[in-house]
This record gives sequence, C-alpha cells and structure tokens, in this order.
Amino acid sequence: MLRIPYRDLYAAVLRATEHLGMRGERAALCARLFSETTRDGVYTHGLNRFPRFAEMIANGSIATDAEPERIGNAGAIERWNGNRGPGNVNAWLAMERALELAREFGIGGVALANTNHWMRGGSYGWQAADAGLFAMCWTNTMPNLPAWGTASPVLGNNPLVIAIPHTGKIGLSHIVLDMAMSQFSYGAVTSYAARGEMLPVPGGYDAQGELTRDPQAIKDSQRALPIGYWKGAGLSTALDLMAAMLSGGRATHEIPQDSAYESGISQVFIAIDPGRLGPPEELNSIAAGVLESLHLAPPLAPGKPVRYPGEQTLHLREENLRLGVPVEESVWKMVQELTF
Amino acid sequence: MLRIPYRDLYAAVLRATEHLGMRGERAALCARLFSETTRDGVYTHGLNRFPRFAEMIANGSIATDAEPERIGNAGAIERWNGNRGPGNVNAWLAMERALELAREFGIGGVALANTNHWMRGGSYGWQAADAGLFAMCWTNTMPNLPAWGTASPVLGNNPLVIAIPHTGKIGLSHIVLDMAMSQFSYGAVTSYAARGEMLPVPGGYDAQGELTRDPQAIKDSQRALPIGYWKGAGLSTALDLMAAMLSGGRATHEIPQDSAYESGISQVFIAIDPGRLGPPEELNSIAAGVLESLHLAPPLAPGKPVRYPGEQTLHLREENLRLGVPVEESVWKMVQELTF
Repeated sequence: MLRIPYRDLYAAVLRATEHLGMRGERAALCARLFSETTRDGVYTHGLNRFPRFAEMIANGSIATDAEPERIGNAGAIERWNGNRGPGNVNAWLAMERALELAREFGIGGVALANTNHWMRGGSYGWQAADAGLFAMCWTNTMPNLPAWGTASPVLGNNPLVIAIPHTGKIGLSHIVLDMAMSQFSYGAVTSYAARGEMLPVPGGYDAQGELTRDPQAIKDSQRALPIGYWKGAGLSTALDLMAAMLSGGRATHEIPQDSAYESGISQVFIAIDPGRLGPPEELNSIAAGVLESLHLAPPLAPGKPVRYPGEQTLHLREENLRLGVPVEESVWKMVQELTF
Repeated sequence: MLRIPYRDLYAAVLRATEHLGMRGERAALCARLFSETTRDGVYTHGLNRFPRFAEMIANGSIATDAEPERIGNAGAIERWNGNRGPGNVNAWLAMERALELAREFGIGGVALANTNHWMRGGSYGWQAADAGLFAMCWTNTMPNLPAWGTASPVLGNNPLVIAIPHTGKIGLSHIVLDMAMSQFSYGAVTSYAARGEMLPVPGGYDAQGELTRDPQAIKDSQRALPIGYWKGAGLSTALDLMAAMLSGGRATHEIPQDSAYESGISQVFIAIDPGRLGPPEELNSIAAGVLESLHLAPPLAPGKPVRYPGEQTLHLREENLRLGVPVEESVWKMVQELTF
C-alpha cells in the first residue's frame, strides 16, 4: 500500500479520465469524485473501481460524452434520462438539480433513469450536507441478493444514503449514512475469505441452509443476507420500485447480472432545504443533542465509543490528507501509466 | 379469540373513542384507524393498543381535543405542531396535507412535532397509495434499542413506511412496507417467550454478549438487535435526526422511556404524485414486472412463494372481512363495556 498526496492522486486520475475521452469540467468532476472517495477511506468504491470504469467505457456500457437531460417536470420533482453517461457525474448533477429545486420549493427531487453505477453513494450525501441541505438518495443495482424465501438473487443491494447537515463546535460534522441492503458487500465477503477470516456477524447461508459467518461458504452458496432478513429484502424491493417507477427506468430484474455490463440503472435524489423551516442554531442544537446522547452511552469495548454515521469518514479524511491517501500499488501503477 | 363483523368492531370502537371525549369526524377517524389496523391483521397495533390509548388520555399524555396546527411553511414542505393530540389522527391529517402539497408541487412534505404514537405506521402508507401517490413516512420513538457498540438503549426503533401505488390485474395491490429498526418488536419477543418458542433468527444478545434466538435471554439482557446490526442502528439515528430537526421537535433521547408516557414525538411525511411524471399504465407495468420477478423466484419451501411488502395485508384483510375480525376476548369486553 502506497500513500500518495491527495493532489497527486487527483492529478493522475484527471489525466486518466481525459485519456478515456472525458473533457473539461466533466473530466475534473469525475476525477474529483473518484479521488475524494479514496481520500475519505471508502477504498472499495474509489480508485479501485477505476479499472472497471475504464472497462465499461471500452465495452460501450458507459458513454463518456453523454449528458443527463430533463425529460419530465412535475414542479418540485423532475424526471431525467442519464443517457448512460458516467454514473458519478450523472448522480452529482442530479443531486445538484435536486438541491436547486429544494432551495426553490423547500423540498425537491430528481428521478434519474438510464444511468450507471454512482460509485460511492455517500458522495452525493456530502454534496447536499456541505450545501446545508438534507438529502435522501438511493440507486437500484443488478440482481445480487436473494429475496426472503428464495435462494435466487432477485433483489439488488440498492444502497440508500441519508445526509443531515450539521456544524459542530470544531467545524462541519455532517451525519451521512451510506448503506447497502446486503449485510456485507460481495467485495467484503471476498476479502474476508482471502484473509481466511470469519465475518464479525452472520452474513449469509451455507449449503445446508444454516446462517454462517464463513465467507467462503457464502461465496459457494451465493446466499448473502439482506440486513434484517425479510426487512432488508422488503426495503430493497420498495427502493427498487420507487426508483424504476418514478424515473420510468429499469428495475433490478431488468439490469444485466454482470458487473461489467451493469448499466441503465435507476436512481432517486430528494433534497430538503431547512432554511425556511427553522433557524440553523435550532437545528444544530438538536443534532448536537443526539450526537452527544450517542457519545455518552457507555461503550461495550473500553475506548470504543458509539459512532454516528459519517463520523469515521471525517477521521479518515483528515488522516489521509495528512499522511497521504492509501492506494494499492497495482492500481496506482495502472492509473499512472494509463494501462487499465 | 372471537371473530367480530367489521361493522360491529368499528361501532364499538367509535363508541369507546366518544366515551374518551372525542367528537364528530375526529372520533370517527380515530375509530376507523384502530379498527382497520386490526382488520388488516396488525393485531399488535390495533384494538389491543386501545387500553393504553385510554390510559394515556387519562394520564394527560394525549389531549383528545388538540388539533395539529401549521407553524412553518417553506413552500412544498411544512412544519406542524401536533399539540399532543391523538397520534393516529394527527398522522392521518399530516399525510393528508403532504398529499395535497404533492398534488400541487409534485412532491410535498410535512414535519410534525409534539405528536403521539401513530399506532400502525402502514395506515398512512395505504392512505397515500389509495390516493394514487407514493409516500415515505417515519416516526421516532422513546429509546428502546442499543446503538452499535453499547448495551444502553439510546436509539428508537423508529418505524419507516414506504408506499407504492399499484393496480394489479384483479384490483388494488399496493406495495406498503412498514418496518421498525429493531429485528423484533418488544411485543414479539415477549410473546415468543410466553409461548416458550425460539425466535426464527437471532434477535439480540444474551448476558454473555452472544447472539441468541432465546427471547427470554433478550428480555433479561435488554439487548435487542437493530436490523443489520450497525446498519439499522445508523438508519435509526438518521431518521431520528431528520424527524427532530425538520419538525423542530424532540429527538429520541428526549422522549420519556416509559410507554405510558411516550409522548411529544416527531414524524416526517413525504408524498410524491407520479401523475405528471409518467402515465399510470407505464408505472403499473413497471411495478407488475417487479412483483412478477419476485413471484417467479423458486421458493425454498414448496408452496411458499416470495411475498412483496403488503401482500399479506391484502390476504388478511379479505379473510377478516369474510370471517369476522379476530379480537381478544378480554380486550373486546373492555371496549364494549367501556372499562379500559
């Protein structure tokens, strides 16, 4: 593992996006979103995804020049077509439009069809919270999770993001939740298996249909677990339905079940501007009370206090800006030499 | 267990709400919401809650005559004060207002502070879907669930409802998800313990800090499990923050930890009118495709197909209207004789 100064990471990724055919502000935005994801410690969804991003441009799943366009307007909520453009750029633009609508109407939304993997969903939560707005957004995915009562992967893991703006005593401390509906991502299960470690909690079923912490057994059975069993399965279904119906786009069952061709997905972005609901001090003090109540709870493991969603992100961001951003040597080499 | 014709159930509950001091349309609405919940098979949140509802009126937690009032208007989203009125009536009126705002702006919301337990959250999902709109709504609750990394109950189980309107081949078949952030409700754990049965999946920790399906061990340790462990804990926190901050009301840590005094809670209602986004046939056909993909998945247990959220509700509703609504004899006696 190397530690690369953030500005060098960004410069290399920008050169790589331009090498792939992106230009100007769009290339800069795409590179920034990849780089910030790694900077914030979400290594699975940042630079490590770049080779697949390049592969999907090569195989025609991602159209580098395609821009999202508005195809329906219902006032404070709109339908957009992503035209299979780069997923992170499309998602950022969709959230930006939802924020505009929320500033105008108090609440606003964008339903985006025909887009691509948004990489780290939390990026669009930080985007909203940094602008002082609340947001909820989610995406559907290819089928990768069994529904309750079947062993067939008919659900997506459909990540859900909720962002809450908050200014703490020592600066921004937004609360940003970014969670998939699977207990563990396929990547996490694979990496536990590679290290020969057990999962910390049951993450799926073995071949005998018993709950297991053994990652290899889950890889073999393909029966990963939704969070909360039937509950996460239901939530995944509801999010898929809303995304596909509101955007007029594809539902999970229509998305190719192959991560190199997982294209044409559907997303929803909802933003709320609290500015006309209550004074910022009032909202900040409510949030501070909630965070304090969590931090005051006695930890089970000494020295490991309860964390709120996003708290770890700020620690990792600070550390990675100070020490350099950790990148895998092989991926760094590919990106630097433009050989993905 | 008795089976009572729906109209007799409703008439008895109406008389009981009037006996408690409610009048006119408000009494009728309150009685209807209690009765429909039992009719739809959600027995824990219907008639069986009536004695506690009466107790909370008696102890001053619920003000029967209090009506919700708008205290802030940001365009398509508003702040309301529930004035500690009956929780189900307040929630129904809040969703009705969110539906109005959504019809006007495409998307609309109401943040409701200072209200009471809404009983079955799904009621407000069916309300929206029956009107042809999408909805998301949630409530905070008193602290009743440990955060990840502590054994102290500092989170609420904060139920989340998502409603998707859908007309199937043989009539309405809305998708309505209604889920708390705890894997099992306290009531469910208690009733498994009373029957001497194990929970179907782990529902909490025992005194040794091991995951367990033993309901009595969970009652003893008070360490019930959020869905998906740290994920449900994070979702509970995010929903609490949004509800308290947007409404300007109480967060979970400020709500009395005593179910007879669990008052002054915060809720959010968001509705989306799909009418100007796409034609109803298009949306219906997307939903039908998703439901079909679930129903086509091979079931693990023969004859037990995958169900979508709310599907069971329609079966139970039909059965209970046909055979009579099941009510517990003791509760039925109290309600009929007005001796709660």
